[in-house]
Amino acid sequence: MSRVAYVNGSYVPFANAAVHIEDRGYQFADGVYEVMAVRNGRLVDLEPHLDRLDRSLAELSMAPAKSRGSLSVVFDEVVRRNRVTDGIVYVQMTRGVAKRDHAFPDASTNSLVVTARGTPPRSTSIIEEGVDVITVPDIRWKRCDIKTVSLLPNILAKQKAREAGAYEAWMVDESDRITEGSSTNAWIVEESGDLVTRQLDNAILSGITRMVVSDLAMRQQRRLVERPFTLEEAIGAAEAFLTSTTSFVTPVVRINRSPVGEGVPGPVTRALYDLYESHLSGQVHD
Amino acid sequence: MSRVAYVNGSYVPFANAAVHIEDRGYQFADGVYEVMAVRNGRLVDLEPHLDRLDRSLAELSMAPAKSRGSLSVVFDEVVRRNRVTDGIVYVQMTRGVAKRDHAFPDASTNSLVVTARGTPPRSTSIIEEGVDVITVPDIRWKRCDIKTVSLLPNILAKQKAREAGAYEAWMVDESDRITEGSSTNAWIVEESGDLVTRQLDNAILSGITRMVVSDLAMRQQRRLVERPFTLEEAIGAAEAFLTSTTSFVTPVVRINRSPVGEGVPGPVTRALYDLYESHLSGQVHD
Repeated sequence: MSRVAYVNGSYVPFANAAVHIEDRGYQFADGVYEVMAVRNGRLVDLEPHLDRLDRSLAELSMAPAKSRGSLSVVFDEVVRRNRVTDGIVYVQMTRGVAKRDHAFPDASTNSLVVTARGTPPRSTSIIEEGVDVITVPDIRWKRCDIKTVSLLPNILAKQKAREAGAYEAWMVDESDRITEGSSTNAWIVEESGDLVTRQLDNAILSGITRMVVSDLAMRQQRRLVERPFTLEEAIGAAEAFLTSTTSFVTPVVRINRSPVGEGVPGPVTRALYDLYESHLSGQVHD
Repeated sequence: MSRVAYVNGSYVPFANAAVHIEDRGYQFADGVYEVMAVRNGRLVDLEPHLDRLDRSLAELSMAPAKSRGSLSVVFDEVVRRNRVTDGIVYVQMTRGVAKRDHAFPDASTNSLVVTARGTPPRSTSIIEEGVDVITVPDIRWKRCDIKTVSLLPNILAKQKAREAGAYEAWMVDESDRITEGSSTNAWIVEESGDLVTRQLDNAILSGITRMVVSDLAMRQQRRLVERPFTLEEAIGAAEAFLTSTTSFVTPVVRINRSPVGEGVPGPVTRALYDLYESHLSGQVHD
C-alpha cells in the first residue's frame, strides 16, 4: 500500500508530497508542528495537542490553517488512508508561500501538511533495561515553549547523543540546571518517591506526555515538585526517566555514563510506564 | 518572461519549484543559505560567499551538495535564465529528504535550491534620509555565526521593526550590548571618525558586506575597532549605519526614535556608501 499525505487541501501520494521552495517553513523555519500518537486507530490526547498548536500559532501571530473540527477530520482521514492502527500523526503549519522577505507577508495562505505512519511496537529492552542519556549545553533560543520547526539545535543535540551511543541528550542551562531533552521532557525521582521535573517556562516545551504523566502520578497520591534540577542531582537521584509522545515513559539508567540509582529502571518509573500504557490504550478514564 | 529555479539537478518553472515535505529543511530547519548580489550581471563577492557557505556546512557536518565550480556554473545559469542584471541570487542547501527523525539520517542526498531575481534600484531616500531602527532583546540561539535557515527569531524581530515603522531591529544581548540586526550588521562612527562594529564571535554572523566595508575603510586609513557597543553609545555616536548584501551601506539616523548625531546621514557613512557602490560596480580593484 502506498502512503498518502495531506498537503494544502489535497490527499496526494506521499512520494510526490511537496511544498513550494518559497514556503516560509523552508526558508525561515516560520512554522509550528505537533506529533500525536495513534493507538488502536484512535488519536491519543487530541484536545491538548490542538490546544498547544493553537497556542504556538498565536505566539507567532499565525492564523490556524483550518478550524479544529476540520483539522481533526483531516487527521482521521490521513490515519484511515494510511491504515495506521498504532503509530503517529504529524501536522505542520507554516506561514505559507511568499516572496522571500523576513517580515510577515501582507497576504499569504498558511500551509498545512499532515502525515501518518505506523510504528512497530517499542523494543521491550527499552523499558526492561532503560536508556543512556548524555548532557549538552542548552544553546537554543529563549522561546522553547513554542513548538516550532526551528529545531536545528535539537537535531545537533540528538546527533551528539546518537554518536555517543545514547538515546537522548539532556540540555543544561547557564545555571547548570537541566532544561529538557532534545525531543523529550526530563524527570527524576527522589529517594522520598517525589517526582521532580522542571517548571513550565520559556526554557522548555510543555509536553503533553509530561502533563498526562503529572496527572496520572498525582491521582496516585504521588507528590510532584516542579523545579529545575542539576546534573549532580539527577545522577544522585533514586530514578530518572524521560517522557514524550513517541518515547512514552522511558527509564534513564545512566547519565554521561554514570549510573542513576542502581543503574536499572526503578519501581516508580515502571509504575508510571504502566499507567501511561493504560492511558494510551484508553483504559484510564477522566 | 517566466522565472526559473534550480532544484536538485533541474531547472524548473519557478511556480512549480518544490521540495518534498520530508526535506529536513522544512521539518527541522536543517540547512544553510547565502544571498549574493548581482550587479551588471556579475555575482559580487562570490568567493567569500562560497567560503562562508562551506564553513556553515562544515559546522553542521553537512557535505556540500556540489563542488564550488559546479555551484558557480548553476549560479551563472540561473542568473542567465532569469535575465537578471541587477538583483540577487539565493542558494539554500539542506540535509535532504529522510524519514522524520531528529538525528542525522544514515543516507540522504543534500538538497540544493538556487533562485535569482532582479531588484529595482534602491530608493534614493534611503541613502539621502537614512532609516530608523528599533532594538529588541536578542533571544536567538548561541550559534548565530552559522548562516542557517533557522531564522524564526530573526523574522519576529524584523516584523517588530516593520510594525514600528522602522527599517530594521537591532538585537541587544544580556549585557545590554547590540549584537547585530535581524538581517544586517550594526555599526557606529565615533566623534573621532573611528568605526566600531562588534567583533566576530558566536553572537553574530560574519557579514560579507561587513568584511568588504571593513577592508574599504582601512584602505582609506580609517581606524576600525571591533568591540561590542551599547544602545546608549549608539544613540550618542556621531553616526550609525548598517550593512548587508541587500542593504549595502544604509545610514541609521534614529534608534528607538532618538536621533543619532544630527539625525541625518553623516559624511563617514556617505563616503563608505560611495566606496561600497564602487565595489559593487567592480571599480575597486584588489
